[in-house]
Amino acid sequence: MKVNLNYAKLADSYLFSTIAKKVSEFIKNNPDKSVIRLGIGDVTLPLAPKVVEAMKKAADEMGVQETFRGYGPEQGYDFLRNAIVDYYKEHRVSLEPDEVFISDGAKSDLGNILDLFSQDNVVLIPNPVYPVYVDTNTMAGRKIVFADANEENGFLPMPDESIKADLIYICSPNNPTGAVYTKEQLKKWVEYANKNNAIILFDSAYECFIKDETLPRSIFEIEGAKTCAIEFCSLSKTAGFTGTRAGYTIVPKALTRDDMSLNKMWVRRQTTKFNGVPYVIQRAAEAVFSPEGRTQIKKNIEYYSENAKIISSTLDELNIKYFGGKHSPYIWLKCPNNMKSWEFFDYLLENAAVVGTPGAGFGDNGEGFFRLTSFGNREKTIEAMDRFKKLFG
Amino acid sequence: MKVNLNYAKLADSYLFSTIAKKVSEFIKNNPDKSVIRLGIGDVTLPLAPKVVEAMKKAADEMGVQETFRGYGPEQGYDFLRNAIVDYYKEHRVSLEPDEVFISDGAKSDLGNILDLFSQDNVVLIPNPVYPVYVDTNTMAGRKIVFADANEENGFLPMPDESIKADLIYICSPNNPTGAVYTKEQLKKWVEYANKNNAIILFDSAYECFIKDETLPRSIFEIEGAKTCAIEFCSLSKTAGFTGTRAGYTIVPKALTRDDMSLNKMWVRRQTTKFNGVPYVIQRAAEAVFSPEGRTQIKKNIEYYSENAKIISSTLDELNIKYFGGKHSPYIWLKCPNNMKSWEFFDYLLENAAVVGTPGAGFGDNGEGFFRLTSFGNREKTIEAMDRFKKLFG
Repeated sequence: MKVNLNYAKLADSYLFSTIAKKVSEFIKNNPDKSVIRLGIGDVTLPLAPKVVEAMKKAADEMGVQETFRGYGPEQGYDFLRNAIVDYYKEHRVSLEPDEVFISDGAKSDLGNILDLFSQDNVVLIPNPVYPVYVDTNTMAGRKIVFADANEENGFLPMPDESIKADLIYICSPNNPTGAVYTKEQLKKWVEYANKNNAIILFDSAYECFIKDETLPRSIFEIEGAKTCAIEFCSLSKTAGFTGTRAGYTIVPKALTRDDMSLNKMWVRRQTTKFNGVPYVIQRAAEAVFSPEGRTQIKKNIEYYSENAKIISSTLDELNIKYFGGKHSPYIWLKCPNNMKSWEFFDYLLENAAVVGTPGAGFGDNGEGFFRLTSFGNREKTIEAMDRFKKLFG
Repeated sequence: MKVNLNYAKLADSYLFSTIAKKVSEFIKNNPDKSVIRLGIGDVTLPLAPKVVEAMKKAADEMGVQETFRGYGPEQGYDFLRNAIVDYYKEHRVSLEPDEVFISDGAKSDLGNILDLFSQDNVVLIPNPVYPVYVDTNTMAGRKIVFADANEENGFLPMPDESIKADLIYICSPNNPTGAVYTKEQLKKWVEYANKNNAIILFDSAYECFIKDETLPRSIFEIEGAKTCAIEFCSLSKTAGFTGTRAGYTIVPKALTRDDMSLNKMWVRRQTTKFNGVPYVIQRAAEAVFSPEGRTQIKKNIEYYSENAKIISSTLDELNIKYFGGKHSPYIWLKCPNNMKSWEFFDYLLENAAVVGTPGAGFGDNGEGFFRLTSFGNREKTIEAMDRFKKLFG
C-alpha cells in the first residue's frame, strides 16, 4: 500500500487562514473599529426570485409519484443543456447540446478534467493564479511551468514558442488580476495550442462581468478553438450559485488527441465517476436562463459592477495604479509607496480597518499587489473608499 | 500532449443498452403484451414530505438577504455531519463529525477516493461486481485481481492470504448479489487488511435494508476497522435520493499510511476539487435523519422490502435457488434448468414479458445468475411473480 505521495508536495494553504487570524486579532485589540471586508470572493446578494420559485416547484415535483425523478442523465438534463446552447448563441458561438456537460461548479470540473490526461503532460499556468490549477496538477505529479503575468504585460501573458506545454490554463476575466484578454490575444493562444498539439483549459467563470461586446466571453468565439480548448463556466458569480452549485463544461466534439475524442472520454469519465447535478438544482439553473431570470440576475451583476466602479474611480482619483475592475469583479491594485503585499495588508487594516487579499498569496508575481473585490455591500464599499481617500488622499 | 490511454482499455458498457434494445424489439413485435421491468436499480417512490418541506424552506432562505448562504464548507455543514454521527451511534459506532464528509453520492466518492492512492497499488475486487469499481481503477491504470464470489461461498468471498492486495472493495449488502457479510466474516477482512497494510473501501449503500440487528450495517461496527477502512454510503436507496444526490463518506482519523493521515488527505482533496453539496440538498438530507423523516422513509423501505419478500417467497415456492432478497433490495437467482444468463433473459422476456438483469453483465462469475430488484411497483411485482408461477410452477 502506497498513498499518493504527491499530496506531501502540496504547499500548505495559509493565505486565508492567516488573513482570518490577523483580522480577529485586530478586532480584539480594536473593539471600537468597524472592519470592512473587501477580500471575499463570495457573493452576498440572495438568489433571484425566479430561481427560488423554480427550485420550490421542482421540490414539489419530487414529492409526487407522477412527477418524481430518479437518476438523471449524468451529463445533465436536455432542458438545461439546450438553455446553455441558446445562451452561447448570443455570443455567436454555436454548440451542440451534447457538447455541454452540466457540472456542480467550475472548480470540480477543472480538477476532474485532469483524469483525461497523461501524467507526463507539461502544464502551463499563469503566475499569479487561482491556486486550484497548481494544486490539482501537483496532486497528479505533473510538471508545471509558469507563464509570467506582470505589470509589463498587463497581467496577460502571451504564448512563448520556446516553451512546449501540453495543457494551458487561461482564466479571463482573470482571478485574481481582473485582466481580460482581447480576441486578438486569445487567437494567438489558440494558434499556439493548435500548432503544438496542446489543449487550453479555459476558465470563464467571470464572463458575465464583461460589458464590452468586442471582448470574448468564451474561447469558442475564437476560430480554431474547438480543436484545442475545453471551457469551464459556473453560475456561482453569474447568478449567486456559490452555495447552490451548478456550472457547465464545454467539450467540443471536434477535440481529439491520440485519435481519441475528448468528448467521448469525458462522457465516460462522468458516467463512471459522477451521477449528475440534483434535479431541483438543474431546474434552478434553467430559471437563470429564462427571460425573467436573466432580468433579475442582471440587476445583481450591475450591483457588483457598480461597486467595482466605486472602487476603481477612487483609485483613479488617488492615482493608485490597478488592473481589472471594469469587466471583472476584481480590482488588482499596485500597493502604494512600493509596499509589499503583506505590508500593505497590515497597513490598511491598522489604519483604515479595511481587509483585502495580499497578491503574493496568488504566486510570487503577485508580490506588491493587492486584490479588492466588489462582492460586498454598497454602503460598506463606499465607506471603505472614503477611508482610502482619507489615508491616501 | 498525451491523453490518459487507460481509457482505451475500458470495456464498452453494453449491458443496459443491450437490454433496452432487446426490450424495445420485443415491445414492437408484441404490442399487446405488458412488459414488467424488474431490472432497474432506481427507486420509484417519491421523496418523503418532510424532505420536500425542508428543501422548500431552504430554497426560501436562499432568496432572502439575511438567510442567504454562499460557499459552504466543502466537507458539509455541521448540522448534517452531526445528524450522521447520531445515526451511526444507533449501530454502536462512535464517530467524530470531522470524520464524516458529505458527498453528492457514493458513486462520486468511490471514484474520487482513488486520487489518494498510488497507481502501483493492487486492487482486489469481487466478481461479480458493481462495474464502477473496475472501471475507475482501469482508468487509473491499476492492477486488478478478482475475488471469486460464487454459489459455494454464498457470493461472500473471504480473504486469501496468498493474495497481496492494497485496496479491497467490499459491498455489503451486495449489488448485484444481495449477499450480506456477518460480523465474523467482516472481522476476517479487517484482520487481513490490518495485517497486510491494505485499505478496505466499504460500500454500504444498501445498509438500510438490513433488518437483522446482528448483521453489520457499517464496517466500523468491527473492531480494528478504523485503522483500515473507509466507508461510502448514500441516501439514494435509503431515502429515494437517486435524483437528489447526497451521501456521506467516513474517513477515520485513525487511518494512516506512509505516515500520512487519509482524513487530512481527503480534506485536501475535497477542498481542492469539490465545493460541497448544495445547501438546499443538505437541508433535505438533514430532514431524512429527523424523527418525522425517519418514520416517513421507513415506510418506503418497508414497501421495497415487501416487494423483495413477494419475489423471494415465489422463488421459494418454485424451488428456484436465490441469494439476497432478505436484507437487500436485490434478488440474485440461479437461472432454472441451467440456463445461461442471457438465455434466461430472452426466455423470461419471450414467455413472461418480465425484464431482469443477466448476471453475466456483472462479471463472469455472474454467468448462470439473474438479478431482480424490488424497486418496482407493488401490483406489477405481484403480477410478475404470477407469471413466474405460471411459467415455472
